[in-house]
Amino acid sequence: MREAHQDAVARVSEERLWRRHMEMARIGAIPGNGVNRAALSREDIAARGVLIGWARDRKFEVGVDAIGNLFVRRPGRDRAAAAVMTGSHMDSQPRGGRFDGIYGVLAGLEALQAIDEAGVSTRRPIELVAWTNEEGGRFPPCTMGSAVYTGARKLEDFLDVTDNDGVALRDALARTLAAAPGLALRPLNAPAAAYIEAHIEQGPLLENAGRTIGVVTGIQGLRWFNIEVSGRTDHAGTTPLALRRDALRDAVNIINALHELTRDAADAVRFTVGRMLVTPNSPNSVASHVLFSVDVRHPDPATIDRLGKAVEPAAKAAAKQCTVKVTPTLHDDPCGFDPGVVDAVERAANGLKLRSMRLPSGASHDAMYMARVCPAGMIFVPCENGVSHNEAENASAADLAAGARVLTAALLELANKDE
Amino acid sequence: MREAHQDAVARVSEERLWRRHMEMARIGAIPGNGVNRAALSREDIAARGVLIGWARDRKFEVGVDAIGNLFVRRPGRDRAAAAVMTGSHMDSQPRGGRFDGIYGVLAGLEALQAIDEAGVSTRRPIELVAWTNEEGGRFPPCTMGSAVYTGARKLEDFLDVTDNDGVALRDALARTLAAAPGLALRPLNAPAAAYIEAHIEQGPLLENAGRTIGVVTGIQGLRWFNIEVSGRTDHAGTTPLALRRDALRDAVNIINALHELTRDAADAVRFTVGRMLVTPNSPNSVASHVLFSVDVRHPDPATIDRLGKAVEPAAKAAAKQCTVKVTPTLHDDPCGFDPGVVDAVERAANGLKLRSMRLPSGASHDAMYMARVCPAGMIFVPCENGVSHNEAENASAADLAAGARVLTAALLELANKDE
Repeated sequence: MREAHQDAVARVSEERLWRRHMEMARIGAIPGNGVNRAALSREDIAARGVLIGWARDRKFEVGVDAIGNLFVRRPGRDRAAAAVMTGSHMDSQPRGGRFDGIYGVLAGLEALQAIDEAGVSTRRPIELVAWTNEEGGRFPPCTMGSAVYTGARKLEDFLDVTDNDGVALRDALARTLAAAPGLALRPLNAPAAAYIEAHIEQGPLLENAGRTIGVVTGIQGLRWFNIEVSGRTDHAGTTPLALRRDALRDAVNIINALHELTRDAADAVRFTVGRMLVTPNSPNSVASHVLFSVDVRHPDPATIDRLGKAVEPAAKAAAKQCTVKVTPTLHDDPCGFDPGVVDAVERAANGLKLRSMRLPSGASHDAMYMARVCPAGMIFVPCENGVSHNEAENASAADLAAGARVLTAALLELANKDE
Repeated sequence: MREAHQDAVARVSEERLWRRHMEMARIGAIPGNGVNRAALSREDIAARGVLIGWARDRKFEVGVDAIGNLFVRRPGRDRAAAAVMTGSHMDSQPRGGRFDGIYGVLAGLEALQAIDEAGVSTRRPIELVAWTNEEGGRFPPCTMGSAVYTGARKLEDFLDVTDNDGVALRDALARTLAAAPGLALRPLNAPAAAYIEAHIEQGPLLENAGRTIGVVTGIQGLRWFNIEVSGRTDHAGTTPLALRRDALRDAVNIINALHELTRDAADAVRFTVGRMLVTPNSPNSVASHVLFSVDVRHPDPATIDRLGKAVEPAAKAAAKQCTVKVTPTLHDDPCGFDPGVVDAVERAANGLKLRSMRLPSGASHDAMYMARVCPAGMIFVPCENGVSHNEAENASAADLAAGARVLTAALLELANKDE
């Protein structure tokens, strides 16, 4: 590693990085050390304000695009060169933790600040991005900001998505943009030279193996669906079961069938129904309508393809009394990261004498969309007991700082390559 | 029938009764001719205001008790005599119709007004009551107002019940009482000489048999439970199914087991899961907590007793990964109405040359609680296709008026008995 790069890496501050995590964790804090910071909510707006303040303190350029992705840029010597990018997201699950997403944003800011304090110039700009609505907990589907940024999905397709209270994304986005006026408007789909995302592992492999750095090789494939079951509401005391069109009963029939479909002795298939909305949702009225989510994942392209195609026919065959509408909301094939970026991450870990291992990601990340438009990769750090999407999510300050150092070194290598 | 009584019955106005239904139906109107008038809501408060106005127009005495039951009284000659009571409820299901409950209130008011216009004096007072929260759709359980009035349940047991938005009944009740100041405070559990409730049938028997009046002989028994399943939220992409404690998956396992438990070739058992709340309710988070309602009914005392006792062990045996808490919220044994009141209703129908039939009620009604403290009965009128708890609920103006005439005649007989 060059001496100037070593100086920058040495300026990564474990104390500052941890303090910023704890400051962000206060925004949307919930009992049990958790965070509820839904995309485009008041809490998300507050977190954006804090990030913008920190970026402006260092005089970095701050921009925003049409879906609210937030960009913090440190210019390079070559004004025409595409940026090396890093980032993650600031939104959380409704009962989420203090590290999922926000770590990649704060590690990226820490890298930018360390490089800036060391006075290291780079040929390419280095740019941090905080993607809008990675979780999809409030406005399904997930990884929305990176999907729109990379052109995989159209902004217009998401504007009418509503949250559980009926608020449209269109309105929540407008409020979020209005809350941070005067930012440079950044075009969608600008060219990028590379993208590296730092994230907690959200699984137990690093901890079990005693490694500090995960060199992520790719992301498993997934399919998301909304399944809507439509029947008829009736009086629970007077209507014989044979005459009912009970939407909740058929929703249960469909979930039973999907459990059969996804049964897997190897326990590699991930099948989850995590969201269900019942109408009218009253104890003595038969349900007229049920909407529920289906999330299926697998690392093998052929398996996820087969399972994804089987969901709609299985759901329709399982319904006995109601009509069924199946809407695909997310379709991501398994993604392999760029060997050059994977190698750069591994080299940076080795250079810092950190114990690393290569591993795939079970969770989806914005890096999946960036991998479609530029060489991309990820850095994982351990999280306690592999727990995530839970208030109990935890990570050590030392591991978080180690990941930020690997990120700093890898960004510098990629930003000064080809000189 | 005495001549004075005939005069009162003749003053029952089909046109006025229908007009009042349509006026009430505007309060909380929803698409498809339906009504959403939740107990103690803004809409309930508005409906109460309208009823109080109509009562005061006739100079009837208006009172209220601690749980918000509303009383409209026409005094009798004997100041010491207990009242003959009639009534029903003004709240509706979330997607309810224009006749369920409100018919019994408006038919009772019509009877009072017809008797008053005819100048008929009665020995006993006749009193109309609009019971609070019969439906239980917002604040479970149902028939709450009559349960508290008759002493079957304590008011304090319900004050902390919350609706789906977290509003406590205590606060909604206080707002409702404050909105109609200056009413006489009526004690709970005052003695009653008799109680007759008019209601749409909410089933198809009268219509199928071509009868106008149902002489109701009793109400089937029911058991209500809240079942809470507690697990752990986890990341849907990273957590193997074998390591999950998925509350929604176990909720489905329990519902499957309860379907087995209540399976009935004769289709006489009514089993309904109508309400389900999922936490955190996000597509890519495993559910940590699910609460759902169970409603089981049967006319036979031994059968409903056996089923009710089997719910908790069946639910606990069916859960594979989570803990289960079963809370009984309503326990009503089958109720047989008083033969004297049943006969009086039948006599009134015969006296008016209306085709009637005796039948049991599949739905619960406030009359069930009143039957514990005084001789009680009910009058049913047909509803279209037997549909209720649904926007499409319908009834004919002529049938509604016929029921109000039978009610008027029966109330007069009971209020002037023993002279």
